[in-house]
This record gives sequence, structure tokens and C-alpha cells, in this order.
Amino acid sequence: MNTLIKNYILEHENDLIETRRYFHQHPELSFEEFETTKYIADQLDKLDVNYRLMEPTGVLAEIVGAKPGKTVLLRADMDALSIEELNDHLDYCSINSGKMHACGHDAHTSMLLTALKALLSVQEQIKGTVRFIFQPAEEIASGAKKMVEQGILEGVDNVFGIHIWTVNETGLVACDPGPSFASADIFKVHFKGKGGHAAQPHMTHDAVVMAAEYVNNVQSIVSRSVDPLSPAVLTIGKFESGDRFNIIAENAFLEGTVRTFNNETRSIVEKQMKHFAEQVAAMYHGTVDFEYIYMTEAVDNHEGSAKLVQEVTEKAFGKEFIYHDAPTMGAEDFGYYMKEIPGAFATVGCRNTIKETDFPHHHARFNVDEEALKYGAELYAQYALSYLEQDKF
Amino acid sequence: MNTLIKNYILEHENDLIETRRYFHQHPELSFEEFETTKYIADQLDKLDVNYRLMEPTGVLAEIVGAKPGKTVLLRADMDALSIEELNDHLDYCSINSGKMHACGHDAHTSMLLTALKALLSVQEQIKGTVRFIFQPAEEIASGAKKMVEQGILEGVDNVFGIHIWTVNETGLVACDPGPSFASADIFKVHFKGKGGHAAQPHMTHDAVVMAAEYVNNVQSIVSRSVDPLSPAVLTIGKFESGDRFNIIAENAFLEGTVRTFNNETRSIVEKQMKHFAEQVAAMYHGTVDFEYIYMTEAVDNHEGSAKLVQEVTEKAFGKEFIYHDAPTMGAEDFGYYMKEIPGAFATVGCRNTIKETDFPHHHARFNVDEEALKYGAELYAQYALSYLEQDKF
Amino acid sequence: MNTLIKNYILEHENDLIETRRYFHQHPELSFEEFETTKYIADQLDKLDVNYRLMEPTGVLAEIVGAKPGKTVLLRADMDALSIEELNDHLDYCSINSGKMHACGHDAHTSMLLTALKALLSVQEQIKGTVRFIFQPAEEIASGAKKMVEQGILEGVDNVFGIHIWTVNETGLVACDPGPSFASADIFKVHFKGKGGHAAQPHMTHDAVVMAAEYVNNVQSIVSRSVDPLSPAVLTIGKFESGDRFNIIAENAFLEGTVRTFNNETRSIVEKQMKHFAEQVAAMYHGTVDFEYIYMTEAVDNHEGSAKLVQEVTEKAFGKEFIYHDAPTMGAEDFGYYMKEIPGAFATVGCRNTIKETDFPHHHARFNVDEEALKYGAELYAQYALSYLEQDKF
Amino acid sequence: MNTLIKNYILEHENDLIETRRYFHQHPELSFEEFETTKYIADQLDKLDVNYRLMEPTGVLAEIVGAKPGKTVLLRADMDALSIEELNDHLDYCSINSGKMHACGHDAHTSMLLTALKALLSVQEQIKGTVRFIFQPAEEIASGAKKMVEQGILEGVDNVFGIHIWTVNETGLVACDPGPSFASADIFKVHFKGKGGHAAQPHMTHDAVVMAAEYVNNVQSIVSRSVDPLSPAVLTIGKFESGDRFNIIAENAFLEGTVRTFNNETRSIVEKQMKHFAEQVAAMYHGTVDFEYIYMTEAVDNHEGSAKLVQEVTEKAFGKEFIYHDAPTMGAEDFGYYMKEIPGAFATVGCRNTIKETDFPHHHARFNVDEEALKYGAELYAQYALSYLEQDKF
Repeated sequence: MNTLIKNYILEHENDLIETRRYFHQHPELSFEEFETTKYIADQLDKLDVNYRLMEPTGVLAEIVGAKPGKTVLLRADMDALSIEELNDHLDYCSINSGKMHACGHDAHTSMLLTALKALLSVQEQIKGTVRFIFQPAEEIASGAKKMVEQGILEGVDNVFGIHIWTVNETGLVACDPGPSFASADIFKVHFKGKGGHAAQPHMTHDAVVMAAEYVNNVQSIVSRSVDPLSPAVLTIGKFESGDRFNIIAENAFLEGTVRTFNNETRSIVEKQMKHFAEQVAAMYHGTVDFEYIYMTEAVDNHEGSAKLVQEVTEKAFGKEFIYHDAPTMGAEDFGYYMKEIPGAFATVGCRNTIKETDFPHHHARFNVDEEALKYGAELYAQYALSYLEQDKF
Repeated sequence: MNTLIKNYILEHENDLIETRRYFHQHPELSFEEFETTKYIADQLDKLDVNYRLMEPTGVLAEIVGAKPGKTVLLRADMDALSIEELNDHLDYCSINSGKMHACGHDAHTSMLLTALKALLSVQEQIKGTVRFIFQPAEEIASGAKKMVEQGILEGVDNVFGIHIWTVNETGLVACDPGPSFASADIFKVHFKGKGGHAAQPHMTHDAVVMAAEYVNNVQSIVSRSVDPLSPAVLTIGKFESGDRFNIIAENAFLEGTVRTFNNETRSIVEKQMKHFAEQVAAMYHGTVDFEYIYMTEAVDNHEGSAKLVQEVTEKAFGKEFIYHDAPTMGAEDFGYYMKEIPGAFATVGCRNTIKETDFPHHHARFNVDEEALKYGAELYAQYALSYLEQDKF
Repeated sequence: MNTLIKNYILEHENDLIETRRYFHQHPELSFEEFETTKYIADQLDKLDVNYRLMEPTGVLAEIVGAKPGKTVLLRADMDALSIEELNDHLDYCSINSGKMHACGHDAHTSMLLTALKALLSVQEQIKGTVRFIFQPAEEIASGAKKMVEQGILEGVDNVFGIHIWTVNETGLVACDPGPSFASADIFKVHFKGKGGHAAQPHMTHDAVVMAAEYVNNVQSIVSRSVDPLSPAVLTIGKFESGDRFNIIAENAFLEGTVRTFNNETRSIVEKQMKHFAEQVAAMYHGTVDFEYIYMTEAVDNHEGSAKLVQEVTEKAFGKEFIYHDAPTMGAEDFGYYMKEIPGAFATVGCRNTIKETDFPHHHARFNVDEEALKYGAELYAQYALSYLEQDKF
Repeated sequence: MNTLIKNYILEHENDLIETRRYFHQHPELSFEEFETTKYIADQLDKLDVNYRLMEPTGVLAEIVGAKPGKTVLLRADMDALSIEELNDHLDYCSINSGKMHACGHDAHTSMLLTALKALLSVQEQIKGTVRFIFQPAEEIASGAKKMVEQGILEGVDNVFGIHIWTVNETGLVACDPGPSFASADIFKVHFKGKGGHAAQPHMTHDAVVMAAEYVNNVQSIVSRSVDPLSPAVLTIGKFESGDRFNIIAENAFLEGTVRTFNNETRSIVEKQMKHFAEQVAAMYHGTVDFEYIYMTEAVDNHEGSAKLVQEVTEKAFGKEFIYHDAPTMGAEDFGYYMKEIPGAFATVGCRNTIKETDFPHHHARFNVDEEALKYGAELYAQYALSYLEQDKF
């Protein structure tokens, strides 16, 4: 491990915490991270680091090492949520009413900024190039795609990201090969039958019955159509049909989400859902508009990259900091980078029951144990160095 | 047949039509029939007929015949609908914006008023008493009940009502023994499960699935639980559940209506619906609030009364005016009177394709062939006389 | 009424009863009524009445009246059931083991034979022709068709049949215009999916799930697709799928019956069942063989003929013998004649609780009150005479 | 690695193959492995190894090492299947008609016998005790239980078993920590409604509809009630209900199997299935008998033991022989031992496309690449030695 990196971060821990608090106090919604972007750009100006402002928000910075080599991308996301923060006891509680960093992106951004500074301090030793993407709009599953479309992956060999995690104890790093976050898709199904008088069902095609049968039949997609060893969730979150008790409904609208860990299963679910929708509509003499939108890709850690994260963790913090976690059916738009290049995504625990940093993500009282920040910052930096120094992938 | 009655009505046909047009031009919604009530009361004042103003609207008039006998009640309903009339070509088109006599109650009221005058002209011959109820609020299935609660059936032996009917040709009188209009009930079912994250179905009890299974299972009530010879309709007109695609719904709200022709079937449907709701909720670890509201009673014609209507029709208009119609699963609050006393309810055709009086009831271009009015008025009066003169029931 | 007929039958009541007991003691199954056929033929030989032996069983007799006129056909069915009779207390209990007249066809045959003799005794008065069909194989819904195919309806203007009926009190005659017995059809549905290992549902198309969904969805045909005023029953009596607990089933076989009162509803049910079968099979990536077999036609009484039965009943027995019965969803192959020519089918009550003739049809202790036989025999004969004497239809 | 072991096995490879062929030629069904048992006992007699004959079949042998230590159990299963072998081209094809070693238990038995001999040759070096169980009746999921009930696990610290595997290439050893084979349970559900005439559904409680709704509703157990990350399969393999097309079924019988990898999920499925059965029966006014039988436990490899298998594999055969396999929802009764003590279960590949040893298990042309036998035999022996020499678990 590079002890200069470790020392730099330990020496600047206060800065790191202050920066995180600044971001926490000034949360901005997806694609509206204008102040956050400006803050980062100002810092980079002071450091004389090359960067590019992304559209509509976001910053891509780059440090070119003294020696030639590969290029690794480090990613932090910056956006906040439409939640009214309830942490009045914090002096850095959100001052932007109705907005809150309730998922820890404030931590990510400050950790990555600190990692950048630490890496800058050892620029002479770096064999290759480190890029840093301060990404907008992760919460609406659009930022990663937007960044990739603007070319940030050109010439990049590997990507690494971190999510701070109130589920695990402070400092625990979890990053196993294989799936860790699910793909998340949205579907919208609009059944159209033929409405009419409640007392004359035979003159109509009842959209309530049609859509209820659909709900009913799609349960068998998870139970029968997908490989039982490949997890899948199909949730219909919304069912709206009909206006009045005494009129047979003409339309029914369903909305929901699908979660899977691989594209084969995802594709089976999508195709079966569409197929079932068309069959049920035809069975009940109606029609259907079926829309299926890919929202986020599964985060599927590259084996070499994940093992490198574990090695770095062991060397930098000790073996006891390696944690093996089950995957989550939750979603992360980091998967979008991994569609293009290998990489790894780690969670860093920040749960501390005494400090009450054990609220679930997206909770109005969510907070992180700031002890965790230094682990995150160092992990970013050490991973980049270690990746560039090895030559296996 | 009483030819004085017939002649009176033929002589006053213009008045009858004018009165109907007046009502048509001035439609009033349920329990707001203040002007209509006043119009009738004014007429009765002029005729020096005893009457009582009902609460909040409606008029009960009475003609006591010269000879003692039974008491028969004739009923017309007076309220209009919340429909914007599209019959601009009529010079008596509604002048009350957003309100319209689109179900022919204007015809009923004027026919009954004319019948009253005709009967008054033969008061000396009447053996018994004729009551006349100008009833409010049929469209919301509340007026009959309200009238009965105010005691209008006290001392009454038989009741007769008419509905003008664009389904059948002008003048055809349909009144067979047995069911003609269905009972109509409302149900509201609120399933409560346990909401949660779309990716964690096992932590929740999904209200969409619960309610969809209910829709699905209740189909078997009609198909398996009721006597196939006793018609029943169970329509779920409205299904609302969930707010967002990625949150598992905690609540589901269903509303609908049940139509039957007898109380045994009605009771089976009600009990089974409640039973199924409770079982489905329990099956899916949720709870349910089940509400079942009796709205209108079935109109089930008394055999003697219905046959009397047919006899009267044959004698007054000719045998070819008797029409045998299938019952309808539609609803009429006239059934509420029949819960208490025997009686009959007839439809009088007013369909004339050339005159374009063939729009369905409740249509914004609904209209009646005014040729039909004289049949209706005479049928009211002749039925009353014939009923009072016979002694079988 | 023809009093000669009445007197003839009263005088020969003992013969009538003995003949019925003979048939009861010697029951024969469908299309195996050889002895019964021979017995009738022997009688006709003695009476010197023209007849024709039908294939493979059955007798068509004819009496041509002295005066020219129309032709009316009287029908009795002759076959028994595969039931072991439990009426050991009767000295005329079945001697053919495992066979029993448990539906009263023994009564029909003897009543018609007696009616024939009575009519023969007034041959001079008959204006037209009376035919008599002793029909085989009603219980398997094939005999009427078989007879018609052999031309027995040629030149026939009207047809009349009787069923003895333990549901109603002895002597009551029920025959209203309109439907009285339902059409009865058979369906066979064979779903074919793709079997496989129980632990690999995703490699299969589960026929159990497919067929269960079909059961589930077809409930809505009765509840939603047919006119609620037109009764329909759809029963799946048999569901067989799969061989072992740990193998996913490849095939599922369903069998059942449909009952309706008119061909429009029948056709809707048939088409929807086929449509649903194809859609469900396609939905679950399987195939289906759907077979729908018309078994019996609805018995739908011609208005004039039914009213004539009522008139005859009133005049021959008294008004109190006219009974108005609800239709039954049970089946009778008499409807096959009515597809071709107008006619009526009456039930004649034979229930007597003291005599224990109140067991349901097809019960191993079924029996008829023999007091009823004379009513049946006379009704046959008087109907024939009355029909031929009138000229309305 | 112990090279004496390796050499012993290589030198005796022909014996190993011959022994396997002997077993292959003489297959015996579950709990009928009398000849196989006798063969093994004879061998042990010759070797002067202590053993115990198990009831009704099976052999438990034991080699006590020169040095004191722990005790490890090695397991091979011996029974064959009721399959007619189609490998006529083999000169050791089954001579027991209708029976066949179509799952490779012949290989297991011969491999374990050879491993026993090899270990006997190094008895002086063994630190502790090695037990060998030649187990009957794996195919009916009863043998392991039967052995444990007879006390074979007393004093045992660890257990190791092997399955030869035509899925993977010859020699590949797969043994990862965690679940590898699923638990397999049987359920039997008997719904009882109330039968009756097909035309009178309202007088019955239709068992076909009841059971079909059950099939339908239980799909949601897999799709909604279990953790999507914990695989579960619920298969209804058999559905039998009703006898005739025109009688409503009184009974319905379902049978099937449930597969899971952990007891929490297993318990959720069992409880939900029972709960759903009771609710559906109650909903349709019927009753239910629900039986759920635990057949096999999941094979859930102990982390230390599984890693030891990998270490042994690497040292004995080379790193390239370690294979990481997905778990299978198939079943193995080896899990029954693991309920009591830690251990591991490995598969050893025996697929060779050229030799046509790539038929699936239980296929009538199943065969194993005999090259694989020496890997299996050595793995048994080396695992035992390595386990006894380490002191971590």
C-alpha cells in the first residue's frame, strides 16, 4: 500500500469531513447539481487539475501520471433526493427545503475529491492516468448514461465506484465478484377493453377483469419461467381502472418494476410480460399498449477488479475489513459503465448504532458515520494506484 | 273501459304535451325539484285537489271517489340528470345548463298530472280513493324510500307506475308478472396489505395481488354460487391501488354494483362477496373493509296487477298494444313501494325512428315521441279505475 | 274433450299399469331395447296397426283418421339406465341385473301404447294422422337424432312428448311456452405443454398451471360474456394432469358440459371457450385440442302448442292441474325434434310422498305414482285430437 | 499431498475400473443392495478391515490410524434405478433386467473401496480414524437417514462425499462453500368440496374450481412470499379431480415438490402452502387435508471443508481441476449427514463427448468416463488424510 496516500488522507480528514458537510447542507436534485459542480470546479482550478464541465452538470477531472500506462476511472455521484430532512440536530442539516442528501452522495463526492488530492500528491509515482467523474442524476438512473454519451469512457480501461452503506458497520468493504445490484426496469401496461353499463357485461370487454387476470398470470413468470437460481422480482406498484361503481371500465393502467441480475433473465421477463399482456388482451377481446423501459443495468463486478478491491482492503485496512455481502435487488446506475468496461463497485459501511447512523437509505433521518469517509477516500485512491500497477487486466 | 277518461285525455292532449315541454325545459336535479313541485302544487290549487307537500320535494295528491272502496297509488318521478342536453333543435330544450330530462321523467310527471285531471272529471264514478305521488330523486335511488318514510303508503292497497321507454315502439305497453327491473346494490371493498420497497416483496403483503385475486375469484360467484336460472350481475367498476411503479401497494380500493331479481340470489351474492373478501385478505395476510349498500329493490310485478295492466291495455288501446318484454338488469327505485304492497310497473314505448326518439335513456340527445304521452296518461287513469272496480286483490 | 278417450283410458287403467310394470321389470339399455321393441310390435300386430321397425331399435306406428288433415307425432322414450335397482319391495323390480328404469321411460312407453289404443277406438273421428314414435336411446342423447335421420318427421306438422316427473305432485301438467329443458353439450380440452424435471420449471411449459388458468379464466364466460338474462352453466367435471409429484406435467385433460337455453348463448359460450383455450395455450407456450360436441338441443316449447297443452289439461282434468314450472338446466333429447317442427313437451307430476314416489330421477329407489299414468295417457291422446281439430298452427 | 496414496491408486486403476464394471453389471434397487453389500464385505474380510453390516443393507468400515486424532466419514451410495439399460455395446451392461446404474453409484462404491485400500496402505501415517459408509437407498432419499439412525455418526467430526457428474468435463472437482443441492420435499393436497349435478353448480362446492384456484394462488408464494435472493421451486406435478364430464367433482388431489436451499425459505413455503390451502378451501366452502413431507435436506457445504476440498484438488491434480459450479435444484440425501456434522460434498466431472459419457443422469444411456474414477478415489483418500492432519475444524 502506498503510505503517502494513507498519510495524506489521515492528515486531511478534517477537510474531508468539512467538505462532506458542505455538500450535505446544500443538496441539489438530479441534473440540477449546479452549485456542487461549481464547488468542485473551483477546487480543481485551485489545484490546477485539468477538467471538463459536463452537460448539464457534472465534472470530469484527470491526473496524468509521470509514467505511461493504462487509464482508470473513479466515480462519485452527486445528486440528492426530494425529501425533507428531519436531522434538525445537525448543524449542517439541509438548508434547501424539501431536498436532502439521504443516500450519501455527499460523502461520495467529498471522498472522491479528497482521493483526487491525495493522488495529485503522488503524481510522480502514478503509472498511467486517473480520471474522476463527479456524476449527476444517479437517483433518476440517468446520469451515468448521460456521462457515457459525452465520451468519458474513451480510452478508459477500468472503472471503480463506491457506495457508503448504513447496512454494514463502519469501514467494512464489500465487493465480491458477480452481481451486487440488480438491473431495474420500468413497465407501463395499458389495457383497453370496451366500457359500458354495469348491468350489461356481455356488451362490454371489462378492463378490470382483463388487468386483474394479467396481474394474476404474470406471477407465474417469476415462479415458472425464469431459472430459479437467477433471482427476479416483478412488482406491479400501481393499478388504476374505472371511474364509477356502475360503469364497466374501458381502460386499465398498470405500472411496475422488474429487477434481475443478468440480461438473460431480464430478457425472459420482458418478453414474457409482453407476451402475456398481448395474450390476455386478446383473450378478453381488448388491446394493450406495453412499454418496457430499461432503467439501470445490473452491477456485475468483474472478477479481477473485485478481487483487487479485496486485496487493497486487506493491505490498507486489514483483513477484518473485508466483508462478504449478499447482493441486493436495489438499483445503481453504475452498471451502465460496466456495460462498456470491466470494473468494480464496493460498499463501505458507515453504520454506527450509537451515533444513530443506522437509518435506511432514503430515510429522512439518514446520516453517515463520518469515520467511514477516510476509508472511502483511501479506497478510491489505493484502488487506482493498485490497478495501474498490476498488469493482469 | 271508461270512455270519459279516454275522451278527456284526447281532448287535452295539447295541454299534456305543453306541460311535458314545460318540465323538459326546466329540469331539476334529485331532491332539488323545487320549481317542479311548485308547478304541480299550483295546478292542484287551481283544481282544488287535496295534496301534501313532501320533504324536501315532491307532492302527494288524493282524489276520494264518491263510493267507498280501496286505495290505489299512482306514481310519477320528477327529477332530471346532470347531462348537458344536445337537442338544440327543440324549442323546449333545457334552459338549465348541465341539467336534462334525459330519462323521460318530464313525460311521467305530465302524464300523471293529466291522468289526475281526467280522474277528477269522473270523481263521481270512482269507487275508492286514488293517490298520486309526484316523487323526487329516482335517479339517485332515494326518492321512493324518502316518500315511504313520510307515510304515503298508509292505507294504500296497490301501486302503479309507468316508465316511458325509447326501446319499444310508441304506445306498446309491457307489463308481465314477475321481475322486470333488477335490484341494484353498491359495494366498496378496501383491502389493506403492507406496502414496501418494490424489490422486497417478501417483506410486504402486496395489495395489488390481493385485490386482483379477489376480482378473479368473485367471477365464480356468478358462475358457480348462484342458481343459473336466477340472473345476477357482479361488476367491479373501479380498481385503484398503489401510487408508484417502485413501491409495493399497501391499499387497494374496489367499487362496483350487484344486480339481481330476487332477494335470495341477492343475499347469496352479498354473503359470498363478503366471505371471499375476508378469505382473500386472510390468505394474503391482509385485512379488508367490506361495505355492501342496498340501493334499489327489484321491480317484481304482482301477478294480478300485471295482468290487470294487460287487460286495461287490451280494452283501452287494443290487443296489439300488449308487448312482452324481457326483464332488464337496469334499476328503478319503484321496487321500494312493492316491498310493502302489491302493484305493477309498466313501460310505455315512445320510440319513433323518423322522429329520432330512439336514443337510449341518459343520452344527451334522448327524446320521446309525444304521441306516447296520451297512452301513458290514459293507462294511469284506466288502471286506477279498473283496479278499484275489481275485487280480486 | 273427447269423453270416449277419457272413458277408454279409465276402463283400461289396469292394463296400463300392468304394461308399465312389465317394462319396469325388463329394463334395457340405450339402443339395446330389443325386447321392448318386440313387445310393442306384438301389440301392434294384434291391433292391426301399421308400424315400421326402426334401426337398431324403436317403433314408428301410425293411425290414419277417417277425415283428412294434418299429422301429429306423439313420442315416448324407452331406454333404461345402468343402475342397480334398490326397490326390492316391488314385485316388479328389475330382473335385469345392473339395469333399471330409474327415469320413468317405462311409464312413457306404456302411456303412449294406451293412448294409441284409445285413439284407435275413435279412429273414425280423427281428422288427420297420428304417428307414434317409441324412441330408443334418450339417455345417451342419441335416439331422437337417429329416428329423425330415418325420416320419421316427413310430413309431420307438430310433435308432442311427455316426461313423468317426481318433482311435482301427481297429475300436475307443466308446459309453458319457451325454454323448459336446456341444451347440453360436451367439451374436451387437451392442453399440451412441455414436461420436465420438477426442479427446472424454466425448461418446461407446465400443463397444470396452463389448465388451472383455463379453469380460472372461463369462469368469466358465464359471469361476463353471456347475457345475464340468458342462463348458462359451464361445468368442468374432470381435470387430469401429470403422473408424478416430481415431474412437471406435459399434458392436461379437461372434460365438462355446457347448458344453455338458446343457440345464441350456446354459441357465445362455445366460441369463448375455444378462444380462451387457444389464448391460454398460446400464453403458456403450449398447444390445445379443443373439442365441443352438441349433445342435446334445448327444449323450447312453441307458444301455440304449449298453450294447447294447457287448454287440453284444463278441459280434461281441471284448471288446478295446470302447473307453471321454472325451466330446468337438465337435458332431454326431445329438443332434436323441435329443431325441425313446432311442438310441446310437458311434464306430468307423479310425486306422492306417502307412496315414496319422491326420489329424484336416476336414483336407485326412483319410482312413479301409478295414479299419474292415466293422466299421461289421456294427455297424449287428447293433445293429438285437439291439435288436429284446430287450425291455427 | 500424500504421494503413496496417489501411486497406490494409479497402480490399481485397473482393479478400480473392473470393480466399477462389476457393480455396473449387477445393479440392485434401493434397500435391496444385498449382493453389493456382500461383495464389499467379502473384500473387507480379505483385507482384514473392521466393518459392520447395516440394516437392511450397507456396510460401515473403519480404519484406525496409528496416531490418535479426529474421525472423518467418507460416503458412497450403492443403489441403482428402475431403468432398462440401453448400453448394449458395453460388455458390462446391466444383466439385471429393468435395473440400471444410471446415476453413477457404481462408480462411487468402487472409488470408495479403492480409497479404503489406499488408506489402509498408509495406516501408519494416519492421525485419527477414517470411517467408510457404503450407503443404500439414496435414490429414494431414505438411506442416509437409515444409516444415521443406526449410529454411524457417533464420534464422527466431519463427513465427505462425492458424486460423479456427467455435466462437467472429466476430472473437474466442484465444491464451493454454501448450498449445492436443494432440499426436496413432497406435498399432497386433498381438497374436498361437495359434488353434484353438472347443471346445478349452486347446490355444490366445485372441487375443480377450488383446486385450480389453489394452483393459481400458490404461484405468488414463489413470486411474492420468499426472498428473491433465496431460490425456491414449487411444482405441482399432478392434478386429479372428477370422474365424469357431467358431474361436479367432489374431490381434487394435488401432488408436488418443493425445492429450496435453506430452512428459512423452506419453512416459509411450507407454511404459506398450508395457509393458502386452508384459505382456498374455506373460501370455496370446502375442506382440505394438507400433507408436507421432508424428503431430503439441502446440501450446504461447510466453508472450511469445501475450501479443504479445493486445496486438496489443487495439490493433488492442479489448480485447473478446481471448478466453480452453480448450485442445482436437484436433490441428494447427503444433506442428512450435514444436518448433524460439518462436511463437504463434491462433484467429479466424468463427461467426455467422444466417449459419449455426456448423457444426463437417469438416462438409459448414461455412462461415465472411467478416467474419472482415479480422481474420485484419490480425492476421497487425500481429503481424509488432509482433514485429519489439519486442526482448524
